[in-house]
Amino acid sequence: MSLVQLDDYGPWTVTPKPRSETDLQAFQSRLFADLADFVGSRDGYAFFGRFDNMIAVTNGIDPETHERFQERVRNRYPVTASVGIGRAPTPAAALGAASEALQSAGGAQDPARESAIAVAGPDRSSGHVTIAHFDVVDATATYTNTHNAVDTNLTIQRATTELASYLRSEHDGVTQFVGGDNVVAACPPLDEAQFDEALAHVEAVAGVTLQVGVGAGSTARDAGQEAKEALERCRETGTRFARGD
Amino acid sequence: MSLVQLDDYGPWTVTPKPRSETDLQAFQSRLFADLADFVGSRDGYAFFGRFDNMIAVTNGIDPETHERFQERVRNRYPVTASVGIGRAPTPAAALGAASEALQSAGGAQDPARESAIAVAGPDRSSGHVTIAHFDVVDATATYTNTHNAVDTNLTIQRATTELASYLRSEHDGVTQFVGGDNVVAACPPLDEAQFDEALAHVEAVAGVTLQVGVGAGSTARDAGQEAKEALERCRETGTRFARGD
Amino acid sequence: MSLVQLDDYGPWTVTPKPRSETDLQAFQSRLFADLADFVGSRDGYAFFGRFDNMIAVTNGIDPETHERFQERVRNRYPVTASVGIGRAPTPAAALGAASEALQSAGGAQDPARESAIAVAGPDRSSGHVTIAHFDVVDATATYTNTHNAVDTNLTIQRATTELASYLRSEHDGVTQFVGGDNVVAACPPLDEAQFDEALAHVEAVAGVTLQVGVGAGSTARDAGQEAKEALERCRETGTRFARGD
Amino acid sequence: MSLVQLDDYGPWTVTPKPRSETDLQAFQSRLFADLADFVGSRDGYAFFGRFDNMIAVTNGIDPETHERFQERVRNRYPVTASVGIGRAPTPAAALGAASEALQSAGGAQDPARESAIAVAGPDRSSGHVTIAHFDVVDATATYTNTHNAVDTNLTIQRATTELASYLRSEHDGVTQFVGGDNVVAACPPLDEAQFDEALAHVEAVAGVTLQVGVGAGSTARDAGQEAKEALERCRETGTRFARGD
Repeated sequence: MSLVQLDDYGPWTVTPKPRSETDLQAFQSRLFADLADFVGSRDGYAFFGRFDNMIAVTNGIDPETHERFQERVRNRYPVTASVGIGRAPTPAAALGAASEALQSAGGAQDPARESAIAVAGPDRSSGHVTIAHFDVVDATATYTNTHNAVDTNLTIQRATTELASYLRSEHDGVTQFVGGDNVVAACPPLDEAQFDEALAHVEAVAGVTLQVGVGAGSTARDAGQEAKEALERCRETGTRFARGD
Repeated sequence: MSLVQLDDYGPWTVTPKPRSETDLQAFQSRLFADLADFVGSRDGYAFFGRFDNMIAVTNGIDPETHERFQERVRNRYPVTASVGIGRAPTPAAALGAASEALQSAGGAQDPARESAIAVAGPDRSSGHVTIAHFDVVDATATYTNTHNAVDTNLTIQRATTELASYLRSEHDGVTQFVGGDNVVAACPPLDEAQFDEALAHVEAVAGVTLQVGVGAGSTARDAGQEAKEALERCRETGTRFARGD
Repeated sequence: MSLVQLDDYGPWTVTPKPRSETDLQAFQSRLFADLADFVGSRDGYAFFGRFDNMIAVTNGIDPETHERFQERVRNRYPVTASVGIGRAPTPAAALGAASEALQSAGGAQDPARESAIAVAGPDRSSGHVTIAHFDVVDATATYTNTHNAVDTNLTIQRATTELASYLRSEHDGVTQFVGGDNVVAACPPLDEAQFDEALAHVEAVAGVTLQVGVGAGSTARDAGQEAKEALERCRETGTRFARGD
Repeated sequence: MSLVQLDDYGPWTVTPKPRSETDLQAFQSRLFADLADFVGSRDGYAFFGRFDNMIAVTNGIDPETHERFQERVRNRYPVTASVGIGRAPTPAAALGAASEALQSAGGAQDPARESAIAVAGPDRSSGHVTIAHFDVVDATATYTNTHNAVDTNLTIQRATTELASYLRSEHDGVTQFVGGDNVVAACPPLDEAQFDEALAHVEAVAGVTLQVGVGAGSTARDAGQEAKEALERCRETGTRFARGD
């Protein structure tokens, strides 16, 4: 997992006075889009996280390639980005290692840190990723077409938060809302019963019925495509869980 | 308030088979960035919402101008966008009116709906907006520089969800995470005690200490800039609440 | 007419060492795309010019609005932009006035110049624009589908250069290649015979047969749309010249 | 060399009626920027060409990778792109082979052609590229800071056209204006005298004094960086020609 953190970004957004919020929104979104393209075309996955702290699943992408992304940011944007790369048996542990590596290289608002890169963990990762792709059963009919958008958004947001907390505490997963009613998690290999429990938990605490497609592979792209195709089978067959072949 | 909803987007993302997730991420983020630019340069505010359902504070921006944005989407992207515009005394009621207007024009996955636009509410809005801009007290030192990014993200996400739920149920506000540790709400005019209660609620249920700057004006941009400057005063003085002059 | 000039850009591209050429290409193109959006949504026209010196037809767009674009550049890119705005009876004279105004504010590589803005000419422009939209007769069959792309590109490039030189010297027009086989000129009101002569000149010196649609209006958008529709009539009827109603 | 051609683009731009010109400008520029990023991060070079016909130096980038770019276009834009890939001893011959391959797959406005890909030439290219990077000696002082922008643009444009024609006819090179006063050519290995003649030709017919840095390598990026660094030495030492080590 990689953690991409903008350098000294908070202070920049208010220097010399608070910058236009819509400009910041547009700027952050485009920078993330660039990361998604960059990582995506190398078979990884990118998550917007908090925009100033973006997360990527980057199995098989070496540090030199990350530097190329840093160069691109430096050439295109008024800010720079530092990167922590962590390798560990679970996604959350890998992201923890990445976080610590980056913290060692300097704080997020340390003016001296600029385009730093830090790596932690064993030399080679296992090369195996599991991706779970969730969505809300019948979201359009149940929510979008019948409720105030503010409530639909809140409902999805709460379901996401509960799912992310659960997968973090129970299985060391890293979970991200990816738009619409879709949520993607990088997680260890789990069995169907474990996913059923996760869905049941979200239904119990947030009142939202999810379904999930699960895929595995040597890259996030392979695992993720498999997960998406499995989720299609859920949509077609009405089952709540499907796994790629 | 305006609700910008991509037409028949869910089905498109899986036709003929599931499209690359990073391509979708990049696509959605750029489309939102375009909305932020478009609305921002007309003194409004734009929120990414769920990306396929974006929200904008658009006082003083007429329907014809919204059509220009729809034209731009049609000319630039492989999807179209429909728009609901709602006017009402509170942000949530306005977004509710916008949601209903859009729903009347056709469901989100109705293949016949394309670039629809629908308006609900009185002819002229009050022309007065209140924007509250929140952030987490000392977020970088307390979280970013010391915790696993997965946990920091979850903490901020939970605080956002709790704040958004509270402002929705208590004050009919519309709240959006906008990156980093920043959360923006369009809300009715509230007094300091009401904001104190909101902060206390989030502290109690999510364990996160927020501060807030509040601004008002005839456009979201004016109100928002005032709110951002007020929040700067919080950061400088250590107070938890500040209001623009 | 407005001249948008990046500040101290040449030196930046080689500091501390030459930056990646494709990064610069992508950067320049996106900055121009932002200008096109910004100006376009205010009914103007934008031309990429030399990318570090972009040109816009900006009747009716006031200096404060230009400053908003400068703010956006500052918030989004690692460079700033200065702007000269010129008003005069012909497009070339207006661009000359804009050039001089900008030069007075500081040279293009003057490190002290940053986001300058300078205006020259009478307080109010005439509010009338003529746009001529040219393309190559039957370009796809004659060139694209039958020749080496290097030669097709050269042919179109030479035709553009000759047309631009002619319209500049004979009619004080400002001419820009806009992609494909399309060329757009801002020019004074000319009659059909004058356009015929321009087409005959290009045919004689570059061997390329053009057709042209002409429109007029109070904004570049109105004039340009009229020109584009007139050009469609040329395509349909086989005439070499058409003018909007 | 690769030729990236938008499918049935001309008709699309006027369906159902002519689309906003600034929208088209922004759209084309962003699509090219995406190509520049995509190719650039694989060590190639991309040229905007005519925007609907873009050119890339793609040594070592296989057809499957080109398909990934086509997928990205399909997922992001309202148009598709077909690609011809040609291999040959000189850049112009390679682009000719790419053009013919693409033409065999269908005409540019053939509605049936969509995301086609066609390859021509020997299985493996020589893996050696020469890049020449030209600019105008003292362009800022001589032109930008002292002339009407319309004339400066024309001067550079004419110099570019003459240089491109010369390198095409004499040395089978492919030449592209890349912004500012910069022109880049992919060419066979030429000696200093041959470059001197090219510069002399441009000086004679266009009255513009150029200088050139030349680099070679197994990828366009390597060759191009070497050329850019050589050009820096020209700027520093006042010589008109420099070659990378």
